[in-house]
Amino acid sequence: MANVTIIGTGTMANAIGGVLADGGSSVAYISHEQSGSATVEGDIVVLAVPYPAVDGILAAYGDQLAGKTVVDITNPLDFSTFDALVVPAGSSATEQIQQQLPNSRVLKAFNTTFAATLASTKVGDLQTTVLIAGDDTDAKGALAAAVEAGGVSAVDAGSLKRAHELEALGFLQLTLAAGEKIAWTGGFGLVR
Amino acid sequence: MANVTIIGTGTMANAIGGVLADGGSSVAYISHEQSGSATVEGDIVVLAVPYPAVDGILAAYGDQLAGKTVVDITNPLDFSTFDALVVPAGSSATEQIQQQLPNSRVLKAFNTTFAATLASTKVGDLQTTVLIAGDDTDAKGALAAAVEAGGVSAVDAGSLKRAHELEALGFLQLTLAAGEKIAWTGGFGLVR
Repeated sequence: MANVTIIGTGTMANAIGGVLADGGSSVAYISHEQSGSATVEGDIVVLAVPYPAVDGILAAYGDQLAGKTVVDITNPLDFSTFDALVVPAGSSATEQIQQQLPNSRVLKAFNTTFAATLASTKVGDLQTTVLIAGDDTDAKGALAAAVEAGGVSAVDAGSLKRAHELEALGFLQLTLAAGEKIAWTGGFGLVR
Repeated sequence: MANVTIIGTGTMANAIGGVLADGGSSVAYISHEQSGSATVEGDIVVLAVPYPAVDGILAAYGDQLAGKTVVDITNPLDFSTFDALVVPAGSSATEQIQQQLPNSRVLKAFNTTFAATLASTKVGDLQTTVLIAGDDTDAKGALAAAVEAGGVSAVDAGSLKRAHELEALGFLQLTLAAGEKIAWTGGFGLVR
């Protein structure tokens, strides 16, 4: 399958890496602390860091990301209020990253699935679904194939503009979990 | 249960009315064609019309809606492109309706459930969930109780500001169905 580098070593990084490794992808991790000193080997690079850390990652690794598929998993919440996103209204973190990486194929994915539902591949009795948005169909297809090989469903959610809606969905899901309306092992499942 | 007036007689109007009637609510319908001549008897009024028809409904019935709970179910898509909403970025149809009806308790609900999943009360093997956003907790509670009595789950999705995220979710779900990624009998289910 794919050759993947995951930048980040937290819960989401491990859950995503676990799914991809289960599917036969080669997965390497770069920790946040290696700040710029590591070599990005993968063709698919997952930015599995909190949104406030993205700018530093792009500053450190931006040149190495040219020509690669870059996967943004962030939910750019204002964590001081839990009541808004910090990106401009109507936009998305992913669109902003694409602007900063014009020579990369930037995708949104994994922001609407909690770590637990990736690791278990289930949300309730449903197979977990990773929603993928971006403008490069081949890049979306390659990521989807790598995810599905790991036992998790993947759906092309549309163009890069749909990253706005994926971030809204991720935000909503986070507020529901933080408000104890759902468990961190639950959330939205997609019925085909 | 509740005393409900549904303005609209289409597929969604009937699906919503069916759930509420099954739960023991009194449900009356006002057809779009009665343009302003009908009396709105219900304490909860569901605007089950397409978004472009809302302004006319508010012009005709706005005075009668004072003091009532008004439920906006719209997904304000630009149907010419299927690629954007027609409300200002960061806002929602519901917030705009609340501004026009300052003496009503305006809620967002039913825009993230297709008619088929309301009528069947199921999305896949999951109970269908109606997500409700609005600033009046009592109004949300009354609508949730009426919905749950009809065999459909209801979840308080937060303040009126969260109508933006519910509209993003409804929009995303419509694009997935229109793009044949999901069936009109499927969509997002919520696992608690």
